[in-house]
Amino acid sequence: MHIKDTFVPTSRLEAFSDGVIAIIITVMVFDLKVAEGMAGQPAWQQLRPVLPKFATYTCSFVVLAVMWVNHHQLFHRIRHADRSLLWLNTHLLFWMSFVPFATNFLGANPTLDWACFAYGIIFLLSSASFALLRNYAAKHLIHPQMHAERKAAARYKNQLAMLVYLCAALAAFASVYLSYVLFLVVPAMYFIPEKIEGAK
Amino acid sequence: MHIKDTFVPTSRLEAFSDGVIAIIITVMVFDLKVAEGMAGQPAWQQLRPVLPKFATYTCSFVVLAVMWVNHHQLFHRIRHADRSLLWLNTHLLFWMSFVPFATNFLGANPTLDWACFAYGIIFLLSSASFALLRNYAAKHLIHPQMHAERKAAARYKNQLAMLVYLCAALAAFASVYLSYVLFLVVPAMYFIPEKIEGAK
Amino acid sequence: MHIKDTFVPTSRLEAFSDGVIAIIITVMVFDLKVAEGMAGQPAWQQLRPVLPKFATYTCSFVVLAVMWVNHHQLFHRIRHADRSLLWLNTHLLFWMSFVPFATNFLGANPTLDWACFAYGIIFLLSSASFALLRNYAAKHLIHPQMHAERKAAARYKNQLAMLVYLCAALAAFASVYLSYVLFLVVPAMYFIPEKIEGAK
Amino acid sequence: MHIKDTFVPTSRLEAFSDGVIAIIITVMVFDLKVAEGMAGQPAWQQLRPVLPKFATYTCSFVVLAVMWVNHHQLFHRIRHADRSLLWLNTHLLFWMSFVPFATNFLGANPTLDWACFAYGIIFLLSSASFALLRNYAAKHLIHPQMHAERKAAARYKNQLAMLVYLCAALAAFASVYLSYVLFLVVPAMYFIPEKIEGAK
Repeated sequence: MHIKDTFVPTSRLEAFSDGVIAIIITVMVFDLKVAEGMAGQPAWQQLRPVLPKFATYTCSFVVLAVMWVNHHQLFHRIRHADRSLLWLNTHLLFWMSFVPFATNFLGANPTLDWACFAYGIIFLLSSASFALLRNYAAKHLIHPQMHAERKAAARYKNQLAMLVYLCAALAAFASVYLSYVLFLVVPAMYFIPEKIEGAK
Repeated sequence: MHIKDTFVPTSRLEAFSDGVIAIIITVMVFDLKVAEGMAGQPAWQQLRPVLPKFATYTCSFVVLAVMWVNHHQLFHRIRHADRSLLWLNTHLLFWMSFVPFATNFLGANPTLDWACFAYGIIFLLSSASFALLRNYAAKHLIHPQMHAERKAAARYKNQLAMLVYLCAALAAFASVYLSYVLFLVVPAMYFIPEKIEGAK
Repeated sequence: MHIKDTFVPTSRLEAFSDGVIAIIITVMVFDLKVAEGMAGQPAWQQLRPVLPKFATYTCSFVVLAVMWVNHHQLFHRIRHADRSLLWLNTHLLFWMSFVPFATNFLGANPTLDWACFAYGIIFLLSSASFALLRNYAAKHLIHPQMHAERKAAARYKNQLAMLVYLCAALAAFASVYLSYVLFLVVPAMYFIPEKIEGAK
Repeated sequence: MHIKDTFVPTSRLEAFSDGVIAIIITVMVFDLKVAEGMAGQPAWQQLRPVLPKFATYTCSFVVLAVMWVNHHQLFHRIRHADRSLLWLNTHLLFWMSFVPFATNFLGANPTLDWACFAYGIIFLLSSASFALLRNYAAKHLIHPQMHAERKAAARYKNQLAMLVYLCAALAAFASVYLSYVLFLVVPAMYFIPEKIEGAK
């Protein structure tokens, strides 16, 4: 009874996280709107102010999708959840829930250094809280069969992502375009090697 | 262990997709609103600007529902998910997530050729990414008992839908009303033969 | 194989419906907002325009909750889903998805007869599509052990609800307040007898 | 058959609650937006009006997360759901669904006593409806192995939370800052002792 009380199955935790991440992703769709007052004007004029929002939406979608895939794979290896995992997961969702705000802020001000900085910092904090969650799970909840080198690789990639986000945030004060390039590095980093690994 | 790592059950993938599709569908409900400033005016005057939005909402709802039913039936046949399936599914959700934008754009400009064109292109891209997902699953993940002719029929229908969406998008420059008729062809195509098939 | 193809488990259908209904309910929360421009004014003046919205929100929440409970109980008895059930369920969700629009319209125009009429008609159409779903399920999918009288009672209640909604919609042209009273009858009808039944 | 009819598994109830709570939490993210008209102005001026909204959002997120964790733990112990539980749960979700409104109202008027009072009252009503749900479940649905002292501890904590929320609501008329401090007491109360308990 005591064990059952402390360790619960992860199914509901996963379902709740899926719900929150699904909503976070689609919440950003709301900002993809032509302005009410512009109805009837030429299509190009209506679409022009929305274009930078498309770019930031796409970037945020890809980053959140990478996080969801990693979350999915991490929890696939976790057998039971405890109270600390519940809170570390909630902590991750908290920072992820700021992504729509940062996306909206940057989409409305695509060349503003501080908007670009804020966007990078939110991603940095999301990555950091994912790292906390992963480290806790790796120590306490993941079954030991998992290869140690694999764990180390995941941790290393996570730390590299955090470093890139920090660089991207700071680069905004030199050039926002440099930041934009750096923001694309992390998803690529997660996406490309996996394909190669899968091809082995 | 290695197999378990690469092939995961599809349950969470389905749950996440359901969440995203459910939100995409209901996000469009937000635009169905009488303008704040018109409260107190006659009902007809308040409702008139919302009417084209009802039409585009209904069309988008039906198209997304057809996609959900097809997604449901495809995943019912898939036993395990791998990393490529995760990404192909995310890719599909990405294009589907633009449907609310296209619906809002067309609803605000019901006779604008470019709005109608954009609406068709989003559906074309959604269909194309569904085709990619289906083809990958058919090659690698669906159990072999499934009749080859059945697979071919599904692929053929998918390609026909893509062609109709392309025609509907291009038809917008001749007449948006022609496009509207064509947009209704695809759901009908999926809906009607199934009933006949079911009656056999 | 053929049977497996036609009859699928209802789990994903339930999950998708839950998602859509959960979003429909909470979408209405968005309209519960004090106007941006009124910040800093006395609380009462900020809250006054929101008050009729509270009333319509509460009414819609209760009606949708009754529908969800009935949906839950109906699907608890259904073992397998077929294609027709998928479409009848989608049809129900379609009409339910208009509830936020009708709620917003009535909340903005609490004494407008046509707004009150539209509100009643949406509930009537939702009830009617629920009746279609229930009848189909009762004929084809519910296991026969269920008492015939119980089925008849459920059908009778459903028809009575539709009649009350029709009366409420039409009553709007005499007095919207009469409609408001009638809108409360249906949830009460579902809520009260169940309690008595439960006490037996 | 009769038992099966009255007692249903809690899985769908949990999924629906998860959906509603996930949406309630993320709905609040929508208000975290820089004003449309301010694009192009210095970052600080765009962010300043959003700052109190960040604070109230964070507070509401934490309170709702505590409620979700408690809900999760309560339902983990409930084996079967009956009709009363469905309604008590819906009742809880109803009051929780007002949290975004109260958060928006307080975020727009961070120093207005009535806004702060309303915020506290919504939390009080949510806590009270959680207490109703917990008491009903404890009496009828939770398996008897659970230690009586543990039940009593949970009930006591719940009552203390309600008292703190009431004090916080009333304190608004003395000083809203005092209320803010008190609003942080309840999450801390749930968060800190659990950590100590976990360390035992």
